[in-house]
Amino acid sequence: MPQSKLVTVEELDFLATGAWILGTGGGGDPYHGLLALKALYADGARVPLVAADDLDDGAMVGVVSQMGAPVVNLERTADPAMTVKPVRMMETHVGRRFDALMLSEIGGGNALQPFLAAAVLGYPVVDADSMGRAFPSVFHTSFAVGDLTAHPYALADIRDNEVMVTRCADWLWSERIARKVLVEFGSRAFSCKAPRTGREVKDWGIHGTVRQAIALGRAVHEARLRHEDPVAAVLASQDGRRLFRGKIADVERRATEGHLRGAAECEGLDEDRGHRYRLEFQNEFLVGRRDGVVDVTTPDLICVLDSVSGEAVGTERLRYGQRVTMVALPAPALFLTPKGLLHTAPRAFGLDLDFVSPFAPAAEARP
Amino acid sequence: MPQSKLVTVEELDFLATGAWILGTGGGGDPYHGLLALKALYADGARVPLVAADDLDDGAMVGVVSQMGAPVVNLERTADPAMTVKPVRMMETHVGRRFDALMLSEIGGGNALQPFLAAAVLGYPVVDADSMGRAFPSVFHTSFAVGDLTAHPYALADIRDNEVMVTRCADWLWSERIARKVLVEFGSRAFSCKAPRTGREVKDWGIHGTVRQAIALGRAVHEARLRHEDPVAAVLASQDGRRLFRGKIADVERRATEGHLRGAAECEGLDEDRGHRYRLEFQNEFLVGRRDGVVDVTTPDLICVLDSVSGEAVGTERLRYGQRVTMVALPAPALFLTPKGLLHTAPRAFGLDLDFVSPFAPAAEARP
Repeated sequence: MPQSKLVTVEELDFLATGAWILGTGGGGDPYHGLLALKALYADGARVPLVAADDLDDGAMVGVVSQMGAPVVNLERTADPAMTVKPVRMMETHVGRRFDALMLSEIGGGNALQPFLAAAVLGYPVVDADSMGRAFPSVFHTSFAVGDLTAHPYALADIRDNEVMVTRCADWLWSERIARKVLVEFGSRAFSCKAPRTGREVKDWGIHGTVRQAIALGRAVHEARLRHEDPVAAVLASQDGRRLFRGKIADVERRATEGHLRGAAECEGLDEDRGHRYRLEFQNEFLVGRRDGVVDVTTPDLICVLDSVSGEAVGTERLRYGQRVTMVALPAPALFLTPKGLLHTAPRAFGLDLDFVSPFAPAAEARP
Repeated sequence: MPQSKLVTVEELDFLATGAWILGTGGGGDPYHGLLALKALYADGARVPLVAADDLDDGAMVGVVSQMGAPVVNLERTADPAMTVKPVRMMETHVGRRFDALMLSEIGGGNALQPFLAAAVLGYPVVDADSMGRAFPSVFHTSFAVGDLTAHPYALADIRDNEVMVTRCADWLWSERIARKVLVEFGSRAFSCKAPRTGREVKDWGIHGTVRQAIALGRAVHEARLRHEDPVAAVLASQDGRRLFRGKIADVERRATEGHLRGAAECEGLDEDRGHRYRLEFQNEFLVGRRDGVVDVTTPDLICVLDSVSGEAVGTERLRYGQRVTMVALPAPALFLTPKGLLHTAPRAFGLDLDFVSPFAPAAEARP
């Protein structure tokens, strides 16, 4: 068993707040998952967090997440038993228990899903994910960038349906099949992705993202307690850039093909008065345009924060009149490589745009 | 090993002709499968046929079929290796070899699919199926009528995608999930349904349908050789009823949700001159209306035959000007029970119609 530290109850709140910001509008509101996890903690559960580098190379790690259109989660609460189902399916399929679970995406509610299963099963969670944020599909993961296999993966629903995808031709086919099944499931499915070895997690996981989210959430909570600006705390914690401050003027949103797609228009306030900002999203914010000119795109993290509380605003929660501040946080370095950009830049989402970043001039210098 | 008799090359032709008639317009044109099976026979393969009642109760039987919109098969030939894929998947899943394979549906090309796999793998085929005809979905099978479990089942495509549905809430969910996956696969998938024990096949299989199709096909071929009326031979062989003779005047057809749906209008010729006949179909012919009045519905077999050759005409092959004769053949007795009608009468297809049959007055007397 690798060295680990138990995640505290206090840290759960920080994790939820930080992960929701890193979700860049998607990954699902963590609120229901946080409530369910706190209930498990109230019953005595404590989840150990282990560093990816402390895993044995041969360890088997389960990659846990919930898939679907975030808007559906507004009406469906979290249930640890559902999160456990695909984990058990995968253990049955491969014929052994997992040594640890990890996050598919640190962004949004999916930061909490592996903790729900781990709290029930008594497993540790690895301090790593495969996105460093949230993204709409497995094609956008670090494991896909690394050309690891996409199968097998398990999907379950809240009825009694269980699907195991035992082979897929590639990561795009993996996503195509999963997406059709989850739409039929009601645009929400519980999944356990292809198991990863400890070696694969070390080589291709995005390390330290659970601690990153906890630190980010802590900064926001502490700024609120001190009556300081939580948005400034986000920028300071993550080396971010402020993009725009204003008021949501228009939202266009539709749940299609298991995704939530649309755009939001924002009218400037304060120093941005007289300017407009447009955000386009597919579950997550993908492109930002200031007065019609693209000034940030995926894979940079485009986050919409409540201007007062610093709380993240999900794409399914955007509404007319909200006072928000758009910020950009730097993307994981892996996604800025040529192969990484193939999987995460706007063209990977069918958008005819190159990657644009406020961090771009310094990109080569990033670790 | 139960007693068996090898199916001869000559019988393959009869099987294809008879199965295509029993397909009631669906099940897919058997032509490609027949060519592939003859190629295997030319290489020395011979498939044993065993009676269902000769199976050991504990035998494990693989249920093999191809799923999808028949129209797609016009452009995709048969490949025994593809048919074998889901069989191997299922054997891996359950951890043992099958003792025999059986047909999901005797109708159309699916009569030949299990023979393709059996010829490659050296397995016998059981003289039974679960429909006694063709139907659009597993909900319409005798196994569903018997409330046997619908899972696990395996789906594979021509790329490298393989899906195992390890649990489903019921037969309708089984169909919903499979249908979405197969549409994504390109409206054609190779499947191995839930394995059945010898006992289950004895209790719930439709027995003798392979021999029935061979006898039907033989009757048609012999009538052609003797310059007798093949349509009359079909009626005599199966105790059928002639419904209408005429010329196809209009066809409306669309491939949606992995099904081929539509309707055909027929203008009367000979003794039916001055009358019209309308057929509605979902892969298979479901309802016949003579001059607007329903005179036959599923589960009775509604078959469209070329008026000269007696060859079946599939729903994907209907075209303006064809000279055709519509005939009705009696449904398997199981489907005429109240539970059977729940699964196979028009309401099981979303049609607001009761079962209507030219055989109805004598239905109680049928075995």
